[in-house]
Amino acid sequence: MSLKERRVKKEFFYPKTVAIFGPSERRGYYWIHSLIDTGFNGAIYPIHKEKKFGGGLQFYQSLSKVPEPVDYAIIAVPAEHVSNVLQECAKNRVKFIHIFTSGFSESGEIGRKRSKEIKKIIKKNNLCVAGPNCLGIYCPKSGLSFRSEIYQMDEGGVSFISQSGGIATNVVMRGHKQNLLFSKVISLGNSVDLQSADFLEFLADDPETKVIGLYLENLGRNEEEKKKLISALKYANKKKPVVVWRGGRTELGARAALTHTGATPTDLKTWTEIVKQTGIVEIRTFEELIDTLIAFEIVKPEILPKGPNVGIIAVSGGLGVTNSDILGDLGLKIPYLSEKTMKEIEDYDQVSSAGVSAANPIDLGGSFLNLSVMKKVITLTMQDENINSMIIEISQHYIYDRILLLDQNFSQAFLKRILETIIQASQIVKGKPVALVMPTVAYEIEDIFNRDYFVRKGVPVFDTVENAGKVIRNLYQYQKYKDIE
Amino acid sequence: MSLKERRVKKEFFYPKTVAIFGPSERRGYYWIHSLIDTGFNGAIYPIHKEKKFGGGLQFYQSLSKVPEPVDYAIIAVPAEHVSNVLQECAKNRVKFIHIFTSGFSESGEIGRKRSKEIKKIIKKNNLCVAGPNCLGIYCPKSGLSFRSEIYQMDEGGVSFISQSGGIATNVVMRGHKQNLLFSKVISLGNSVDLQSADFLEFLADDPETKVIGLYLENLGRNEEEKKKLISALKYANKKKPVVVWRGGRTELGARAALTHTGATPTDLKTWTEIVKQTGIVEIRTFEELIDTLIAFEIVKPEILPKGPNVGIIAVSGGLGVTNSDILGDLGLKIPYLSEKTMKEIEDYDQVSSAGVSAANPIDLGGSFLNLSVMKKVITLTMQDENINSMIIEISQHYIYDRILLLDQNFSQAFLKRILETIIQASQIVKGKPVALVMPTVAYEIEDIFNRDYFVRKGVPVFDTVENAGKVIRNLYQYQKYKDIE
Repeated sequence: MSLKERRVKKEFFYPKTVAIFGPSERRGYYWIHSLIDTGFNGAIYPIHKEKKFGGGLQFYQSLSKVPEPVDYAIIAVPAEHVSNVLQECAKNRVKFIHIFTSGFSESGEIGRKRSKEIKKIIKKNNLCVAGPNCLGIYCPKSGLSFRSEIYQMDEGGVSFISQSGGIATNVVMRGHKQNLLFSKVISLGNSVDLQSADFLEFLADDPETKVIGLYLENLGRNEEEKKKLISALKYANKKKPVVVWRGGRTELGARAALTHTGATPTDLKTWTEIVKQTGIVEIRTFEELIDTLIAFEIVKPEILPKGPNVGIIAVSGGLGVTNSDILGDLGLKIPYLSEKTMKEIEDYDQVSSAGVSAANPIDLGGSFLNLSVMKKVITLTMQDENINSMIIEISQHYIYDRILLLDQNFSQAFLKRILETIIQASQIVKGKPVALVMPTVAYEIEDIFNRDYFVRKGVPVFDTVENAGKVIRNLYQYQKYKDIE
Repeated sequence: MSLKERRVKKEFFYPKTVAIFGPSERRGYYWIHSLIDTGFNGAIYPIHKEKKFGGGLQFYQSLSKVPEPVDYAIIAVPAEHVSNVLQECAKNRVKFIHIFTSGFSESGEIGRKRSKEIKKIIKKNNLCVAGPNCLGIYCPKSGLSFRSEIYQMDEGGVSFISQSGGIATNVVMRGHKQNLLFSKVISLGNSVDLQSADFLEFLADDPETKVIGLYLENLGRNEEEKKKLISALKYANKKKPVVVWRGGRTELGARAALTHTGATPTDLKTWTEIVKQTGIVEIRTFEELIDTLIAFEIVKPEILPKGPNVGIIAVSGGLGVTNSDILGDLGLKIPYLSEKTMKEIEDYDQVSSAGVSAANPIDLGGSFLNLSVMKKVITLTMQDENINSMIIEISQHYIYDRILLLDQNFSQAFLKRILETIIQASQIVKGKPVALVMPTVAYEIEDIFNRDYFVRKGVPVFDTVENAGKVIRNLYQYQKYKDIE
């Protein structure tokens, strides 16, 4: 598809003027608050037939009363008035329209009739529309938003397209909590006009987007739409990782999706074939989605794992065993370290006689808190030819024991040294990622603080070995696809 | 096995006097701190050949210098001195001995020799020993402990036996964070004398224990030990739920276990057969372990789910779809509600026209925050004959929106009403559990606070639908076993 045919344009995400049809007092002027709180820098024009002001802003009786051209319209009027507002937008050449209002194809006979009606208006007037029944666009850089009170608004490299508004909201809220930085988030709802495929193609070429996430319930309403989606997935995933959560993957989920968006079920076999064909990274839970997006955003493309072999450092023998079970279930391998590496670890003079086990998983035993041992072991393991990636488990309550009993400054010194060691070792050994697991066993707040410390330096941090394993598997799977291509 | 033959006795957990061999200044007098911090009310006698005092206590040169009989000994001297200390304990008739020291069968030739030596002493003198290479006993009611700084020390109904000290520590620390209340936790290490089976049999008859957890790497060193374990599992699980985490379940895990405790691998088929035979509840991750123990502790035995059919209330259509996928993967069913229930929900006059979907999963749409609708829907769904249990997802960020925009007191009022509704409905509909999912999407601290609110009233709360689903499945599986027995 040539770029000229693309209907989604960068300017949709960077409007200078936004009109809000139906600024609702009952909803606490939600849309006005969202834009202002997120730092939208242009002009907001609430449109209301009768009211003169609200939420701190002057209202306008109609679009024609607005003193300048409007780039972006949010339609939040009752369903029966949407057609008229669309006509008004057409007359005033609004570039992009977001229909928040629900009550269309998802709600019975009247809804389906309304849906046909607006589709006709859109087509006739060449409008570009997201929705209905969706939250529209969140773009931290421009200040577009569907959410008030988003604390942290730095922009980043993650873009996300969602057929569910609830999931789009959760991704933004949880993402921010975990320092996931967004470029563009699009909630698409019923997709009467613009579809996932249109946004996928745009984001594929968008230099501001490093990784694309997608929540998908519907592969399209007909064969043509489905084909377009598959082709867009293939195109985008060649340019950057595309991480897809397919809702309705199972029989039970598909039945629920039918009620939700009226999506035609696609059988599991067809879906599996599409995943294989397009090389997209398929994930299956919300947590895996967030974790995988973070990892693709912060791990440099050149250090994606080149194979399934993981080196594990655990704080206790029992965790080494259970970590092996869990990673094995995910299809990863935990090979023995080479004879040479094992010998070098065992011979290291600071290793306690109580016993480091140098086989993989590596159990540092009593030497876990010895920074010199930790440094030696991380570096040697990363250099080992049998290893493609590493998972290091740091259990904060062991560190806090040391603080309580002996040394108040130990915690920060320990984590700093671990981070330095990982970075130093990464410079020697190119192309091997390290993931940290910091289970929230006991100290929640310290834990969250310390995570940022690593994430900012490009080392992803996870709650559980299972989550880390899923992500390492996803990074490896993407790398494998790139290698074949 | 008759009660008379039991080697583990209640008095092991309730000693009046504890001796500590090897109170180590280097470790900050860890064992002394643990006992004092946990509220041990008896007398602590640190034994040291040369030192006169430390950690605030007077030291004694040997056990014979201690002015009263010692019930419980902690041995933390170097491995080569353990034999002598055991002899001293034997001479002074110590009732229970915990060997913390490592460097026995897990560490090479010398270790194995030492292990044989202490085994001989134990047998000859009829000693009762946990370990070596373990943390011993945690019993909040008596103040025995292997952990300093355990903030909350109320006793409860959960007992746990672990072949890994690391996992025992994690279970205690994380358990306390999630309000899991313990009766007795036993870290067993190498089990040269007392084994999991001995403690299992004791806990099965212990009136203070409501549910037993077990981390198991080793089914025994020979056929006899294995038989004893299987028989203990069967005996215990008939009396109360036994939740087992088997480390070394997979090939990779078994290989790691061989290095860790020298456990002989048991093939997956044999293990699956044991699980079936004994009816124990098998779990596979740390999080599932904690969640399952909490649920068995707080959900009354008479309301365990009688079938696999789950009713789901979700805050958005997308979450309904993905929840269905996830629960389906776990083998649970999400049947349609009965025609009667669906009609009653749809006809309820406060349901917003924007549409509640009354099929299961139930999508409350815009009516999610309408307390009257929520109450109606919970009650009707619990009464529905197609439903055996319920999962309700409460996403706090939706509630906080309402707080920010409209009503400061909404959050507590909303949660209180939900809780009241669940309790009222439970009184009408006997025998159906409700699980809450409160994803930590955005507001961690509020979230943790609000969880306690429900847990204290017997409603378990989970981070994710996947975790809730695993636990509902585990509760149902146990109920099914009880029904067949």
